[in-house]
Parts: sequence; C-alpha cells; structure tokens
Amino acid sequence: MADIQESKESLSESLQQVISLLEKHKLIEGLVHKQEMAKHDLVESIVHKQNLSELQKKLDLLHTADVAYILEALPLEQRLDVWELVKVERDGDILLEVSDAVRQTLIADMDTDELLAAAEQLDTDELADLAPDLPKDVLQELLDSLDTQNRARLQSALSYSEDAVGAIMDFDIVTIREDITLEVALRYMRRLGVLPDHTDKLFVVDRDDILLGVLPLKRLVVNDLAANVSDVMAIDAVVFHPQDIADEAAKAFERYDLVTAPVVDNNNKLVGRVTVDAVMDFIRDETESDMLSMAGLREEEDFFASVWKSVQNRWAWLAINLVTAIVASRVIGLFEGSIEKIVALAALMPIVAGIGGNSGNQTTTMIVRGLALGQVASHNMQSLITKELGVALFNGLIWGGVLAVIASVIYSNYHLGLVMMAAMTLNLLLAAIMGVMIPLIMNKFGRDPAVGSSVLITAVTDSGGFFIFLGLATIFLI
Amino acid sequence: MADIQESKESLSESLQQVISLLEKHKLIEGLVHKQEMAKHDLVESIVHKQNLSELQKKLDLLHTADVAYILEALPLEQRLDVWELVKVERDGDILLEVSDAVRQTLIADMDTDELLAAAEQLDTDELADLAPDLPKDVLQELLDSLDTQNRARLQSALSYSEDAVGAIMDFDIVTIREDITLEVALRYMRRLGVLPDHTDKLFVVDRDDILLGVLPLKRLVVNDLAANVSDVMAIDAVVFHPQDIADEAAKAFERYDLVTAPVVDNNNKLVGRVTVDAVMDFIRDETESDMLSMAGLREEEDFFASVWKSVQNRWAWLAINLVTAIVASRVIGLFEGSIEKIVALAALMPIVAGIGGNSGNQTTTMIVRGLALGQVASHNMQSLITKELGVALFNGLIWGGVLAVIASVIYSNYHLGLVMMAAMTLNLLLAAIMGVMIPLIMNKFGRDPAVGSSVLITAVTDSGGFFIFLGLATIFLI
Repeated sequence: MADIQESKESLSESLQQVISLLEKHKLIEGLVHKQEMAKHDLVESIVHKQNLSELQKKLDLLHTADVAYILEALPLEQRLDVWELVKVERDGDILLEVSDAVRQTLIADMDTDELLAAAEQLDTDELADLAPDLPKDVLQELLDSLDTQNRARLQSALSYSEDAVGAIMDFDIVTIREDITLEVALRYMRRLGVLPDHTDKLFVVDRDDILLGVLPLKRLVVNDLAANVSDVMAIDAVVFHPQDIADEAAKAFERYDLVTAPVVDNNNKLVGRVTVDAVMDFIRDETESDMLSMAGLREEEDFFASVWKSVQNRWAWLAINLVTAIVASRVIGLFEGSIEKIVALAALMPIVAGIGGNSGNQTTTMIVRGLALGQVASHNMQSLITKELGVALFNGLIWGGVLAVIASVIYSNYHLGLVMMAAMTLNLLLAAIMGVMIPLIMNKFGRDPAVGSSVLITAVTDSGGFFIFLGLATIFLI
Repeated sequence: MADIQESKESLSESLQQVISLLEKHKLIEGLVHKQEMAKHDLVESIVHKQNLSELQKKLDLLHTADVAYILEALPLEQRLDVWELVKVERDGDILLEVSDAVRQTLIADMDTDELLAAAEQLDTDELADLAPDLPKDVLQELLDSLDTQNRARLQSALSYSEDAVGAIMDFDIVTIREDITLEVALRYMRRLGVLPDHTDKLFVVDRDDILLGVLPLKRLVVNDLAANVSDVMAIDAVVFHPQDIADEAAKAFERYDLVTAPVVDNNNKLVGRVTVDAVMDFIRDETESDMLSMAGLREEEDFFASVWKSVQNRWAWLAINLVTAIVASRVIGLFEGSIEKIVALAALMPIVAGIGGNSGNQTTTMIVRGLALGQVASHNMQSLITKELGVALFNGLIWGGVLAVIASVIYSNYHLGLVMMAAMTLNLLLAAIMGVMIPLIMNKFGRDPAVGSSVLITAVTDSGGFFIFLGLATIFLI
C-alpha cells in the first residue's frame, strides 16, 4: 500500500535526489571542461554515464504527476536536463500535468518530431488541452495524422472556449443498449477487458447514440443478472451540453456529488462525458487564476521565469495603480494650501484613505462570494446595502472616535479630531456603497467581479478619502 | 434526463416561486392582522393554508442541495418560515448542506427534540460534521443514543482537528475477503442490494480488518468470474491515516485522480474511507476561507447577518490596519518640517507607498503559490530573490522615471523628480525583499502565508515608502 505520508516525503526526497544527481553530473562536466581533460577520458565518462542512468532510472520509477512536480520545481536549465531524460512515451502525459508556464518552456525545447511522438500517446481530449500551446505547423501535422472521427472530435473540442464544458469533456465513454440483460452487459464488459478511468457508470443509448439513461456500475453489480438494463438504469441523471459553462457544471458536480456525467448535443446524442478529476482540475485552475488576477498577475508565471518575462506579466497592474495613485495625488494637490497651513493633515490623511480601502474590500469580498453562490439577487439588494451602511456607520463612529482622540492628543487640537471622525465615517459609508455597487456592476457587464473590484474600490476610497478629509478640514479648520 | 441548463434556471425559478409564495402568505397574515378580521375567517384561512401547502409541495420536490441553496438566499425571517415547512426527515441532510453561518441560524430555531430527530437521519461521519454546531446537551443526548460502535466512531471523528483526514472520512465501507472468487464477491454485492454513494472500489481485508488491497468495481466487472479477489485486487492503492493532513490528502486525490481511498490506523487496520466529494467540499471550504481571510473576514458571515454580527466579524482586521496606518502616520509626522517647506511632498508620497504595496503583493502572491505547490525550497531561494530584485529594479527605474517626469513638470522641479525616482526604486526593492521573506517566515512558523502576508507587506511598504521618500527629500531638497 502506498502510504500518503511516505509518498509525500518521498516526493520531496525524490526532488532532492534528482537535484543532487544533476549537480554531480554538472560537476563532472565542469571538471572535464576546466581541467581540459580529454572529454572522452574513460573513467570520467563512465561515472558521468552512471550518474545519468541513475537519474533516468529514478525518473522512470516516478508517477507522471511526480515527474511534473519535479520539473516545476527546477530552474530552467536543470529542468531541461531532466526533460531530456524522460522517456518519450511519457512526454505527452507529463506535458498535460505541468502548469501552462512550464509547459511552454518544455515545448520550446522540443522539435516537431518529438512533439508529434508525444502527441501520439494522447487521447483526443488530452490533445485538445495541449493543442493551444503547440506550434501551428505541428498542430496541422497532428490533425492530418488523425482518423476522421478523432479529427472531428479534436476540431470540435478546440472550437469551445476554455470555460465551456466542451473544453473539459473527454470521449472515454462506454455505451450499452437498454434491451439487454445485466448478464449480457457484464459479459460485454469482460470482453472489453478494461474500462476507462473513473468509469462509475455506463451510458445507455439507442442505435443513433441518443442517450436514454445511465447504468451505474454500483447498480450493475447489485441487481439481478436477468434484469434488463432498462429496468435498472437511472433516467434522471444530470446531463451537460458542450456549450454549457464549465463553472456551472463544476457546481453541479459539487451539488449532486457526481463522479462522471454524460455530455449530449442538442438532439440528446451522446458526445462525451465529464469526469470529476477534470472538474477538480478546472476548479483548481479557476481558483489559482483568480488569486493571481487579484494581485494583478496576468497569467501564470513560471517560478523561474526571466526578469523580463515577469516584468511583462506584471506591468499592466502597476500601470493601472500608478494612474489611480496619480489621480489621488492630484486630489491632494488641490488642497496644498490647506496642508501648508496645517501640516498635520498630511500625516493623518493616509489613515482615512487606508481604512476606507480595507473596509470597502471586506464588503466587496462578501458580495463577490454572494454572487458566486447565487445569493445576491434583486430581492435582497436593499437589505444588503442597508446592512453595509449600518456596519460602515458603526465602524466610522467607533474607529473614527478612537482616531479623533489620538489626533486630538498628538496635535492638541480637538477640532482636528472631530474632522478626522467625520471624514472617516463618510469615507467608510462611501466604501460601503462602492463595495456593494462595483462588483454588482462588473457582474452585470459580464466581467469577473473577483478580479478588478479591489483596484477600483481602493482607487475610489483613496481619492475619496483624501477629498473628504482635506475638504472638511479646509471648510472647518482653515 | 435532468438537463443542467434547465436545472440551473429552475433553481433560480424555484427561489422566485418560494419568495412569491412567502410574500402571498405574509400579505394575508398582514391583512388578517390589519383589518382585524377574525383570525379564523374561513375564506382567508383556506387561501392561507393553500399557499403554505403549495410551498411545502414545492419544497418536497426539490433536491436537498437546492433547498439548502434557497435557505442561503433568504433573509433570516423568510428563511425560518421556509425551514418550518421542510419535512423533519430532511432536516439533517439540509443542515449538512448549508454554510456554517446559515446552519447556526437554523439550529438556533430548533428545539432539542427537533435536533435529535434531525440527527437520527444521519450517518456517524455526518453527525461529526454537525456536532460542533449542536448545543452541548443535545450532543450528549445524541452520544447516549448511539450504539457502542457508532459512539466510538463519532467520538474519534470529533477528536481529529478539522484539517485532518479523520475529519473528512466516512464509514461507508464495503469489505470483502481476498480468498473468494469474483463470482462469490458479485453474489455478495447482490445480497447487499445497494452500495454506498461513490463506491468505486471494495476494500479487501483479512479477518482482523487489516487492509490487504482494493478491488475496483471496474476490475470486478471485467475480469473472469472464476478468478480470486487476491489475483485481481490492486495492492498499490493510495492509503491515508486519520491524522494525515487533509490538504495533503486533497492534493493526492488531484494528483492520482482518486474517487475513494481507504483510511487505516497505524496497524493498517481499515477504519474508514475518504471520497472525492468530501475532498471537493474540503477544497471549496479552504479556498473560501482563504479568500475571506485575505480580506480580514474572520469567519463565514451569513449574508443576512445583523450589523452587530458583521461588525464583530470584521473589527479585528480593521483594528490591525488602524494600527499600521497610525504607525505610517507617525513616520510622516517625523518629517512635518520638510512637508511645511515643500508641500508637494505630501501630494507625492502616497504614490511611492502605494506602488510599493502593489508590487510587494505581486511578489507575495507568487511565493504563496510556490509554497502551496511545493516549488519553493532552499535550493532555489537565491535565484528567486535575485529575480525579484531584478524585477523591482527594472520597475523602479521605468515607473519611477515616468513619475519623475510627471512630478518635474507639475512642480517645475527636476530635483524633486529625481528624489521621486530614487525613492520609488528603493521602496520597490524593499517590497521585493519583504514580499519574498514575509510569506517564507510565516510559513516557517506554521502560519498560513496566504492570510496575513498582505497586511504585513502593505504595512512595511507604507511606512517604508514614506520614510524613504521624505528622508531622501529632507537630505537632498531641504
């Protein structure tokens, strides 16, 4: 039995072993080079080869997912050294396992023949995942090499957006007819000899591949062998269409605890299936890309990407923030006269802006979550805004009050304290309103509210906070 | 066939229907009350009852998960109205489906008898999920009502932390012996009549319940009926221990595409199993609590929670931010003399601080992700910091240069521009170093780096940015 604790330890151990074997290998190459020893010096060459073959043996023993893990964790040069040693028939599966960023570095290192050989090992649905990263000419050659059915499948899979069920479905479907007995069905299974991964149910279709129901293996093994498939099959299975939104499908998998589900076209003809592992991969990818986007990383960044690549990945967000910061700076600029008179305003204004941003982000996070769960709807908008305004008012008076006392003490000026409290309360109310409105508006226009909301909120509460605080100060203190 | 598009539409439709039925019901109650009509006025009473029974019928037809969805989407009062109408034998399952926050509101509305009746419908592992939310006396009564085996199971499940495999495992295991033929195994299945959800494999144990291997149903149905279980079973299955970290188990499920996996104690005795749906729920919960924590929401907040509850949930984060903002404000306070002389400093300083915070958060997000994927290790620390410093230097010079030009033009002072550029570059370098170090240090001390890192980074880049900019200005411009 593979013990998970052990397997986890052995994964980082494996990584360490690979690294030390690589280092030995490099060391010897370095020696050969440095001391100008003949490159074919017998002894060195043997040690060198031993190292490499030891490494290769190590890699051959590892699970595909574990080789992918090691490739991810290695800097580019070492990564390509290891990649060279991976058996060509595993290339395809490993390319599927690694992240997009690492996949690109690996593919860039392969020539057309290697890529075609790797692609040959894959199923059509797997090819569809790989295809966007392949050079155009390789993809064309690949399409030419497929039989008609698989070419059609690949082309249709490529035609769906990556957010559609069509992009995550596979074609490993086992179908049976409804008018046979379970005994016949079992005999048919035995003739197949092996069932695709994750097969928890067989799909019952008529002669035109129209889906009639599903027969879970669980039912197949517990029911009377003389029963007909049609008596035992489930006809209320959850069914998807290729054009369905993958995120909705993922929610259905969670909601109804599915392992696999059939995908049918508009005529109810069975075209593929979705499995829970594809759904989990999809959810993981979505979550990660949300996390990255929230920090303004445009795409997955190879951990060992060059400085230049990283700069490209990150610049857009910094540019947007620079613009909003300059706007806020100009708002302050409007009140330079007031700041010259009461310099304490300069020290206090970032507090008002900062707390507003934090509070607004809390509100937005609640709304984004409510939108994702489908809880936000027109019938509860009003109670929602009322509540957020209530929270803002409370926090403004309490925290604003605390700040007012602190500011009054430091600057011996209780008028300043009162302005501080008023500004804080008003900016929190602004944050509450914007915190509700911004994600709702983004959602309305079909944008992902998780991504840009935080920048927008902060922009509003910064400029707004400076304006409110300095404006009140100018009116009441100058 | 349940079409997913239809089922999604019908879910929000169902919600609308429930709401309008509730409103009708309220309207009539209101009428009865307002016009002081006799409460038992025959006609009204009948309409009233019709409404309720229509609503009840509607609810009875909905899937448990869908009733949970509707309860989540309703404000407290309406939620409890609907909850009253739910059949008591479904209470337990629905309590499991709703979020923690909503569960608490529902449980608060139930008396001991209702809670015990709901609990009776549940399996031991489900009870374990519910138990933390139950009043102490109800939990005790529940324990007393269980038989010895189930009481022991529940107590052991409750003893694991919620991050352990023990907390997500269930006890729905079907075991067989290794020395029987597949034919006998199939006959045994048929005698059982029904297999637990997600059963994709049978667990092969000896008479002491020691796990010997697993028999996937897939293999059971394709192999020769005369073969022995021991010939067909897999002996290299991934196995967990109850004390294993659930997050590691989740990763193993993703890595090895598992549907179920056995859980054994230290003597390799089978104690339970983990299913992919429990893993998906766990992942979803983890992700959500990460997202909430990142915005400083301490726990899941019922969407319709009272202002007071929301304030409690959010105050800690605001307090922390208030403290860091006051520190930054005091840093500015040190340089009030300089600001009095050049008031432009006040307008420009938030830009330096803000961009530093954004850039630092980008770095931190990369590191947090690398830590989660196990890519960050001692062997690549140096190349990582070098790269981040490179990115920071580049951005500092470019964006700092842009800002320098803008500041020079606005304030007709190119010295100010140069100070701006230098401060920007230094603060971005500071952000890069802290962006790498802070999550690593938090991780080292066993804290979740996803949660507090962003506050800390922003605190450092705010105070640091103000100090660097105003310090440089004081040295070179005053």
